Amino acid sequence: MPNGYHGKILRVDLSSGRIKTEEYPENFYRQYFGGSGFVGYFLLKEIKPGVEPLSPDNKLIFAAGPLTGVPAGGCGRHSVGGKSPLTGGFGEADSGGYWGAELKMAGFDAIIVEGKAEKPVYLSIQDGKAELKDARHLWGMKGLECQNAIRDELGDQQVKVAYIGPAGEKLVRFANVMNDLDAAAGRTGMGAVMGSKKLKAIAVRGKQRVSIADSVAFKEIARWIADNTPITNQGMHDFGTARVVAALDPAGGLPTRNFQLGSIEGANKIDGQAMLDTIFVKRRACFACPVQCKREVKLDKPYVIDPSYGGPEYETIAALGSDCGITDLPAIAKGGELCNAHGLDTISCGATIAFAMECFEKGLLTTKDTGGIELRFGSTEAMLKMVEQIALRQGFGDTLAEGVARVAKKIGPAAEEYAMHIKGQELPMHEPRLKQGLGVGYAISPTGADHCHNIHDTVYTSIGPMLEMVYPIGILEPMAADDLSPSKIRLLKYYSEFMHFLNCAVCCYFVMSLSLVGFERTTQLVRAVTGWDTSLFELLKVGERAVNMARVFNLREGFTAKDDTMPERFFAPQPSGPLKGALDRKAFEEGKESYYEMMGWPNGVPTPGRLGELGIEWAASQLPSK
Amino acid sequence: MPNGYHGKILRVDLSSGRIKTEEYPENFYRQYFGGSGFVGYFLLKEIKPGVEPLSPDNKLIFAAGPLTGVPAGGCGRHSVGGKSPLTGGFGEADSGGYWGAELKMAGFDAIIVEGKAEKPVYLSIQDGKAELKDARHLWGMKGLECQNAIRDELGDQQVKVAYIGPAGEKLVRFANVMNDLDAAAGRTGMGAVMGSKKLKAIAVRGKQRVSIADSVAFKEIARWIADNTPITNQGMHDFGTARVVAALDPAGGLPTRNFQLGSIEGANKIDGQAMLDTIFVKRRACFACPVQCKREVKLDKPYVIDPSYGGPEYETIAALGSDCGITDLPAIAKGGELCNAHGLDTISCGATIAFAMECFEKGLLTTKDTGGIELRFGSTEAMLKMVEQIALRQGFGDTLAEGVARVAKKIGPAAEEYAMHIKGQELPMHEPRLKQGLGVGYAISPTGADHCHNIHDTVYTSIGPMLEMVYPIGILEPMAADDLSPSKIRLLKYYSEFMHFLNCAVCCYFVMSLSLVGFERTTQLVRAVTGWDTSLFELLKVGERAVNMARVFNLREGFTAKDDTMPERFFAPQPSGPLKGALDRKAFEEGKESYYEMMGWPNGVPTPGRLGELGIEWAASQLPSK
Repeated sequence: MPNGYHGKILRVDLSSGRIKTEEYPENFYRQYFGGSGFVGYFLLKEIKPGVEPLSPDNKLIFAAGPLTGVPAGGCGRHSVGGKSPLTGGFGEADSGGYWGAELKMAGFDAIIVEGKAEKPVYLSIQDGKAELKDARHLWGMKGLECQNAIRDELGDQQVKVAYIGPAGEKLVRFANVMNDLDAAAGRTGMGAVMGSKKLKAIAVRGKQRVSIADSVAFKEIARWIADNTPITNQGMHDFGTARVVAALDPAGGLPTRNFQLGSIEGANKIDGQAMLDTIFVKRRACFACPVQCKREVKLDKPYVIDPSYGGPEYETIAALGSDCGITDLPAIAKGGELCNAHGLDTISCGATIAFAMECFEKGLLTTKDTGGIELRFGSTEAMLKMVEQIALRQGFGDTLAEGVARVAKKIGPAAEEYAMHIKGQELPMHEPRLKQGLGVGYAISPTGADHCHNIHDTVYTSIGPMLEMVYPIGILEPMAADDLSPSKIRLLKYYSEFMHFLNCAVCCYFVMSLSLVGFERTTQLVRAVTGWDTSLFELLKVGERAVNMARVFNLREGFTAKDDTMPERFFAPQPSGPLKGALDRKAFEEGKESYYEMMGWPNGVPTPGRLGELGIEWAASQLPSK
Repeated sequence: MPNGYHGKILRVDLSSGRIKTEEYPENFYRQYFGGSGFVGYFLLKEIKPGVEPLSPDNKLIFAAGPLTGVPAGGCGRHSVGGKSPLTGGFGEADSGGYWGAELKMAGFDAIIVEGKAEKPVYLSIQDGKAELKDARHLWGMKGLECQNAIRDELGDQQVKVAYIGPAGEKLVRFANVMNDLDAAAGRTGMGAVMGSKKLKAIAVRGKQRVSIADSVAFKEIARWIADNTPITNQGMHDFGTARVVAALDPAGGLPTRNFQLGSIEGANKIDGQAMLDTIFVKRRACFACPVQCKREVKLDKPYVIDPSYGGPEYETIAALGSDCGITDLPAIAKGGELCNAHGLDTISCGATIAFAMECFEKGLLTTKDTGGIELRFGSTEAMLKMVEQIALRQGFGDTLAEGVARVAKKIGPAAEEYAMHIKGQELPMHEPRLKQGLGVGYAISPTGADHCHNIHDTVYTSIGPMLEMVYPIGILEPMAADDLSPSKIRLLKYYSEFMHFLNCAVCCYFVMSLSLVGFERTTQLVRAVTGWDTSLFELLKVGERAVNMARVFNLREGFTAKDDTMPERFFAPQPSGPLKGALDRKAFEEGKESYYEMMGWPNGVPTPGRLGELGIEWAASQLPSK
């Protein structure tokens, strides 16, 4: 099998304006792969400890992977990472759409952005050539205006644009980096990092074909994906990610009213079917993807919703919807559109508003604080107002733009119990009292509460395709959603390492996992594209390596095992609704301890030997001395 | 892919004469597989701590694996295990030949032998039926007589016989369990355990075909093995294991004079070519094996060598040859024949004689001790005499029958520096000053110094087929033979887990590894035979599970990390010869520590979480309390 994967990495120093192309040996790609693996590597190697995330000393890394841009479903993603202004630790988020594939076709695997521009700029990359361009006229623009302006300026309507909106410019701590208007590298505040560097956008366009070592084998797998995944993942194809509303609500797993409850009356008004019946225009897809789980929605009243920005994902529906006590789909969709246009993470944004609503209802905030807004659960008006105020740092939005953890600190100790965050990052819309393994996953995640490298326990409770999918990693028996025994933690470890691998690759887990492409076929896909004689074992080690690099980074930045926490709320049952149980503190702590032991992390700290096993013995020197 | 692997395990209580058949769920086979995995499982579950190895409370386990008996090269092995009378810890050895395949065809995956017969018996298993038979008339017989007598008695010349010779009967601590006259479960003294139970032999005969889930896929792999392995491993095919003499001697890696030196004048008289040119009759093979690395040799004078017992392996040539200062191939072959006929491990036997020779030459033993034998290096007469005396526990042989560690203790402290053993088991014929990773492997091996689940560093020093073979486990760069950095220890960990998996499977590493069947094809073979949707990842975890069970067993029996030692000799260079270096104590200790950290074994003890990761959380209760 031919070997010879070679990529290029673009390094852009905004302070000096210098741009250069770097090449790394093939085994560098094989070991770190791309995506979050690159983020971990470059953050550890190149950023000094203690750097202020919004200073020029932070770096912002855009990374695709060896598979990005090959014409197969799930291979159109990229990763954006840097030190997080939200958590102060490892920051990284993936995004779909077309931008990552286009970056590869333009000749690059990754971009390392350093320093800070004096005035707003954007980076244009066209077929191997990169240049910085003035973006003063783009500053302040929302997504569509910005994309249109850049396309017009470059004279090419096919240019793909990753951008920050006003939220990133204004350093909202959970500002995201959008691309293609409807895709977001959402979490950990990478948009604020981009804003701090005065980098408005990165426009990419390329016509190079991404190299494929074994095109016969590749075509066979790509065809399998094309033919099968819309069927194996028909729910996602038909209803988008919103389909899970209908499953989670009756189980008590739909975060409601700032995670007080797990179901909401009128959930059927915000589920996938409701969307289909009302605001849905058509399905959208990421690059080459047959699953097409993205939506396009449109509305003229009571809100004008621009279909350019796609439609609300499940996370958006729950965060701006049920978690805020809202079941008004048009209002939620409008909120989502505002977030995409302004470059806000819908999860953190919704969760922060929900938190503020609870504080308001509990009397910790009043209209004096909120500038007159009645910040009550169920108020669509308040929610929409706050989204805009946050994005523009106006009024009370300027406070909420700091995120739940900082706002709670500002309000005072009484607010802490309502602050649903871990390590400073707001919880995504998955209830750790229902999915308890995911709860442990939240606690130990390098990015704070995060669902993007986690398990979803509920799919392993009985024999079914998802359980069968994990047979090859030796998980052979169903396990209860509230099981936190070593068996479950083992699943968490293995499966989350596969997820971390996908984030390095950078591949879509909706396709590779939920659509049952599975471990074996994913491995074959890597073999076909790269020509590497690799195995699932090696790919899982890529994931494990990425987890460990991120862990070392966090430890270096001052985190300890004490930060692997869970908000108190989840140790008590929901006061009403279908879900009866809660996290058991002892089981939860034992689950974390099991995880540390499985990882070879005594007291939460990787041993030098364990880092050596992963081929990153160099990272041991980054650990704080005991 | 069809699932449904089911096996049967025969349980034989020699004390009561009760025999029963047990069935375990399919996932039991998938998790523990067979071979050394079964040994570890049943020793931990069924033997009480502190049991005397030669008492009725020990158990003796014969175990094949799911692949044993399918018509593909490398699939004809079985494992014999119990608590070792040599080390006091985990005892296990694999063997080739035909017996394991026949056991499967007779309907069983494994046999658990318990208790002790009042008078000598043998076990006969014919097509699913098992019975104990009187063996008083067989007691004292050597291999061929014993096999002939049983075959005649059962009226079937196709019966396959595993037996102990006089050595096992007389509880020589390194007595082995032979089968098919030329195949040995050699190490850790399982023959003495069998002797202590007064079980002379197990005769098996069966006509059932071993089930294969996907015969089309299976045939393709079997054909690949048949067509290719005699070429990919041509050296072994042409010259047998003796071929390595010619490679190791010039490198200083041929143990000579009790490991004082690493090369010997006249090495060319004992290498594979010399055998071909002199005593060689023909190649022999294990069940279904195209590599045919076994030899048949014949001689009339100066010694009569019965070709029935095969020909000397490399280990035999070095242990009874160079390590005793002998380069007389006929004498070595005769020594090997005696060992096979009497049921002695040629490695421990030769190493014990070599140790005694050094003690004799250094004046710690005299002819008064040896009964007049001039026990000098190079004396073929002394060597042959001692082999027979050890086997029959006659004269000084009765002392040496206790093995190096016990003899050294008897002689006194001055002998310790010549005692080449780890945990009581004599070193096999691989020089840890040359292959330094293997040295660390010796120290941490559950069976004491052992080469059967170890790496051979010399094959990874440059780009070549063996290095390419380990690419799929992420080992991508050549590494020096004396490298003990984390990179090398990582190779040791991964590769030895593959070896442990092969010992569970029970497959031949000469075929699967050295003949480049490789990780992927081995995995496919398992999938084809069992129907399990498995992966290399899961198979390596099977190996890791087996290592951990064996480790827990040893810890339970009183071993600690302090027993993971290396004889002092290897920390100083050989006094002359081509090999200049020695083990560096610091690097060696750091290598062990790296290994512990990689395994998740702080202070050499597996954490409960790590055991949980392997699905054996139950084993944690077997660990000694701190």
